[in-house]
Amino acid sequence: MKLFYHPGACSLAVHIALIEAGLPFELVSISRDKRTADGRDFLDLNPHGFVPTLELDDGNVLSEALANLVYIAERTGRLLPKEGPVRWHAIEAVSFMTTELHGGFKPLWKRAPEAEQTTAKQILTRRFAALAAQLGDKPFVTGVHITIADPYLYVMLRWARTHGIVVPKLLDAYYGRMHERPSVEKALTGEGLG
Amino acid sequence: MKLFYHPGACSLAVHIALIEAGLPFELVSISRDKRTADGRDFLDLNPHGFVPTLELDDGNVLSEALANLVYIAERTGRLLPKEGPVRWHAIEAVSFMTTELHGGFKPLWKRAPEAEQTTAKQILTRRFAALAAQLGDKPFVTGVHITIADPYLYVMLRWARTHGIVVPKLLDAYYGRMHERPSVEKALTGEGLG
Repeated sequence: MKLFYHPGACSLAVHIALIEAGLPFELVSISRDKRTADGRDFLDLNPHGFVPTLELDDGNVLSEALANLVYIAERTGRLLPKEGPVRWHAIEAVSFMTTELHGGFKPLWKRAPEAEQTTAKQILTRRFAALAAQLGDKPFVTGVHITIADPYLYVMLRWARTHGIVVPKLLDAYYGRMHERPSVEKALTGEGLG
Repeated sequence: MKLFYHPGACSLAVHIALIEAGLPFELVSISRDKRTADGRDFLDLNPHGFVPTLELDDGNVLSEALANLVYIAERTGRLLPKEGPVRWHAIEAVSFMTTELHGGFKPLWKRAPEAEQTTAKQILTRRFAALAAQLGDKPFVTGVHITIADPYLYVMLRWARTHGIVVPKLLDAYYGRMHERPSVEKALTGEGLG
């Protein structure tokens, strides 16, 4: 399996999940002109040009972080129970983060007008506060075990730091714990961010 | 099970899926001040105040359209194969639509400045063109059977019409086919849109 990525993008969540789940994979970067490090036009693999994208061993190509994360979990039986509330709340949390958090950062990357960026930061601050309330004193997003929601939240908190968004202390502590996990350290090193 | 909805919102996709899957449910609307038609404060059920939200018979509350759709599919064994490429491509398609399409409409609802709305419409036009290429001559998003991706694409195409976004003819024909399904007719009538 190959993971196409950009350093520090939301593909980092899939990268961490692959390591946590113990799946073998090859990490393939993409140049600015959408060529893959293994010599192909990335747009032939994913016409949207988005990372993360997985190329499975059978040749199937699977994009979208959420789909990648559920695939990794179901393939390995890790990071997501087969049924029950933790399964549903983990998928719910990733869906919320891909839409309301990831999407909420867009005006900041795109250097939108000042007023639009200020509004975006206010909304993100509220969203992170809601996630902190949801986390409470649990070690992971959905309880005592790591799920697919945790690598994704880690990446969102990393972006919050980059953009100077202050998050509740509880989430800072959570970030610190995730940051110390061997899987996260290995993924950061793999992407040249260690 | 209860489905909390706003007429024509993306909760319509979950409404259609519930009917397609044959699950019994009660439809509960929400007032502008976030009171539910069954007399509760909706923010107690979902602090974000978003629809769709499902209240399961065991009292668990599950928000996010994607999580609702996968839940309905796994509970009934319909609308999503248990494994294989169709499963992954259906989840991938819903994830793409919740982020890039649904998110892409936001500047249009919010009556953002003219220039921002124009850019949003251009991006949405490109996204719908990519979805048309993906659909090709297949009757449904992932092939010959309806999956969770189809009710969601139907709702996105409905929004495109509302906002005057011209989509490829192939998607117009797809919209027409979906619109004629008994499940869609029943859901529209149920939401007072029939």
